[in-house]
Amino acid sequence: MRRLPEKAVADPAVLYAVLDEALLAHVGVVDDDRPVVLPMACARDGDSLLLHGSTGSRVMRRLAEGAAACATVTLLDGLVLARSAFESSMHYRSVVVFGRAVEVPAEQKEEALRRLTEHLLPGRWDALRPPHRRELAATTVVRLSLAECSVKVADGWPDDADDDLDWPVWAGVVPLSTTRGRPRPDPRLRVDVAPPEA
Amino acid sequence: MRRLPEKAVADPAVLYAVLDEALLAHVGVVDDDRPVVLPMACARDGDSLLLHGSTGSRVMRRLAEGAAACATVTLLDGLVLARSAFESSMHYRSVVVFGRAVEVPAEQKEEALRRLTEHLLPGRWDALRPPHRRELAATTVVRLSLAECSVKVADGWPDDADDDLDWPVWAGVVPLSTTRGRPRPDPRLRVDVAPPEA
Repeated sequence: MRRLPEKAVADPAVLYAVLDEALLAHVGVVDDDRPVVLPMACARDGDSLLLHGSTGSRVMRRLAEGAAACATVTLLDGLVLARSAFESSMHYRSVVVFGRAVEVPAEQKEEALRRLTEHLLPGRWDALRPPHRRELAATTVVRLSLAECSVKVADGWPDDADDDLDWPVWAGVVPLSTTRGRPRPDPRLRVDVAPPEA
Repeated sequence: MRRLPEKAVADPAVLYAVLDEALLAHVGVVDDDRPVVLPMACARDGDSLLLHGSTGSRVMRRLAEGAAACATVTLLDGLVLARSAFESSMHYRSVVVFGRAVEVPAEQKEEALRRLTEHLLPGRWDALRPPHRRELAATTVVRLSLAECSVKVADGWPDDADDDLDWPVWAGVVPLSTTRGRPRPDPRLRVDVAPPEA
């Protein structure tokens, strides 16, 4: 139950892989001297992370103003079941990005929203009804540089001491993964189009 | 792509259900005027959330000192594929807890760690090698009251305008869930004990 056995990773391929698999970031800002952490859809765009939200969202406004921010992405990969609680932990991959976001200017907003949409489901953007001007105006998109970030990977087997190996309990790893289920059609669907691949 | 269609939920049963399903909270504190958000294992204990970490962790120290904190738990339940990017969103359930944590005193620490362990895998604690005194001493556990929290649930079908319903694209929801895979035994496992139920 100690600090998770984790290792800092310098390889940008790991950073990119984590961000490209994640659908959500937990984004923190300081508001009135208190931390506020909210989940936000995210997508990597080169060496930055795109986040978006309503122009009416208080946290989005703080981000767009360039407030100090921290965006954390965590992929939970498994439970590490050791012989003691102390050595029990989780497999995960995480990215913690620090910095000040920059608002995406109006003329780049549609392209940024395209990346956010394509990240959720590749090929989706071109199939969608194009955005109305008022929809773009109601949406704030910010870009957070990946220049200052920390990437950690916790994997491997339980790190029990040799003395504990005869303790009569199963030990190992229970993998965890996020799976997509069978698409459920909107009851109002009235066009004859195949659902996305599950 | 606007602010997610979400609704605030006052029912404590929903609050409890989200926390009891979640394995991770994203915990924010302010450190040197900047927000820091880290993933932490969590477990609900009555009307509070337990978090734990190494005594050497800087964020755990800030929590134990009673710094203003925000712990956010998000369960991602699906992708909402609407006819426009603007109406596309996600199904999720989230809890955002605000407050100042209190360090769990030494004499209650083992019971708190039992709850954290049982949350990951019910029945596990009693099967484990009991904690050594030095392991307990190396672990900080804090308790964050649920008194000030916000619970939101985003569900339902795409909220497209009637004018968009004939757009020739599939619309609906792709469910997302976290699944546990087949347990992988530690190569050093040398006792004959069955793995946990997957």
